[in-house]
Amino acid sequence: MKIGRFSSGGKTFYGIVEEDGVYEVTHPFARPEPSGAPYRVDRVKALAPCVPGKAVCVGLNYRSHAREMEQELPKEPILFIKPPSAVIGPGDFIEYPDMSARVDYEAELAIVIGSRCKNVPVEEASRFVLGVTCANDVTARDLQGRDGQWTRAKSFDTFLPLGPYIITGLDPDRLDISLYLNGELKQKSNTADLIFKTGELVSFISRVMTLDPGDVILTGTPSGIGPMERGDRVDVVIDMAGTLSNTVK
Amino acid sequence: MKIGRFSSGGKTFYGIVEEDGVYEVTHPFARPEPSGAPYRVDRVKALAPCVPGKAVCVGLNYRSHAREMEQELPKEPILFIKPPSAVIGPGDFIEYPDMSARVDYEAELAIVIGSRCKNVPVEEASRFVLGVTCANDVTARDLQGRDGQWTRAKSFDTFLPLGPYIITGLDPDRLDISLYLNGELKQKSNTADLIFKTGELVSFISRVMTLDPGDVILTGTPSGIGPMERGDRVDVVIDMAGTLSNTVK
Repeated sequence: MKIGRFSSGGKTFYGIVEEDGVYEVTHPFARPEPSGAPYRVDRVKALAPCVPGKAVCVGLNYRSHAREMEQELPKEPILFIKPPSAVIGPGDFIEYPDMSARVDYEAELAIVIGSRCKNVPVEEASRFVLGVTCANDVTARDLQGRDGQWTRAKSFDTFLPLGPYIITGLDPDRLDISLYLNGELKQKSNTADLIFKTGELVSFISRVMTLDPGDVILTGTPSGIGPMERGDRVDVVIDMAGTLSNTVK
Repeated sequence: MKIGRFSSGGKTFYGIVEEDGVYEVTHPFARPEPSGAPYRVDRVKALAPCVPGKAVCVGLNYRSHAREMEQELPKEPILFIKPPSAVIGPGDFIEYPDMSARVDYEAELAIVIGSRCKNVPVEEASRFVLGVTCANDVTARDLQGRDGQWTRAKSFDTFLPLGPYIITGLDPDRLDISLYLNGELKQKSNTADLIFKTGELVSFISRVMTLDPGDVILTGTPSGIGPMERGDRVDVVIDMAGTLSNTVK
């Protein structure tokens, strides 16, 4: 199932995307049932598919990326948080901030939480996951190094593109993930290469903080990171989860 | 003016605290006007006075604390984020997490944002501030060192006590701040000793991310940090802003 958030004629709503259009749903996180007449897909704008109260992110979770950053492999997941104010949807602009002179893309698989959970065992993690979506963990690389703490570098407005839809029913640990910059392949991996698998991440993070419906977990980026310039178009492509396209301005 | 959030008989509401009781208000962030009959103060429970979409925190913002942490003075504010799920109110328990063997108090002045803002000049910052409240930036000190990134150490559920009330009309850069552990004075300073003043923080952070009503900025802790044990009572006291008391369990 494809779950999205949409706007049409000044109204914002969650919906399920079917072949014949978008069906509005009122409870996207609890067994959404499509009803009524569908909206035509070309008459709605897709927004970020959820409004996370928190976006919890994991650093250095692919061996290849830890290597290119010249960092040791972490023994436990390294967490950081991106604020809700950073979220944008498919097609929205990534704004290059004045404070930075190097802004990088980072293609990531995002896990979307479906129900409130805390202290989740690894083997039960999937019960609390609604689905997956594409994410771009946009990073001001120069500020990341200068601050030591990664928060400023990763928290600018527009630095968390999400979407286009939440896809349910996939195995999140076996998905091809790629990133294209102006059509050129820059990152290519499979989530089978994650150091900490998605179930381990949900479990670990839920032992720190209560996770709520709509919260997202960004699972780390593979190797191949690099800078974007104003005018560049960046596409995050995940197997069966679609393409998240944004342009830098 | 003292603005709080309260529960009474299963209902949660914002209110203004006057001598004769608590007056419910519907728009706490925009010129709240008390109306109706007041609740008796002993008939309501004070909650955290706001529900921050984000709590943006500043590390090492008192010279004395940077010294005790053996860190160089930062040239720009070092930011990190605590998630909304960490917030508790006055009187609530701080829960000692299984993952940590050393949990510290950190008394801090919190700035509460009153209206949405972005790219705020320093000299206009106060226009966007509703008021101040007491905060405790509870920190799993062992995990802070181990992770490098501070997010996990500072993001456990219950690790952000806030309250008791938002106090309007104070000069946030001239407030005595103290912390008592089981009645013994452990931290004592004045916000005049902040490296980056509150106006500079609002301006700097708003150049990174849009700030929304109810968001809080934690302005850093003075020297004197130390561990808490289960059963300890911790009081953050700010000049004219009251006392925030919590017990560790």
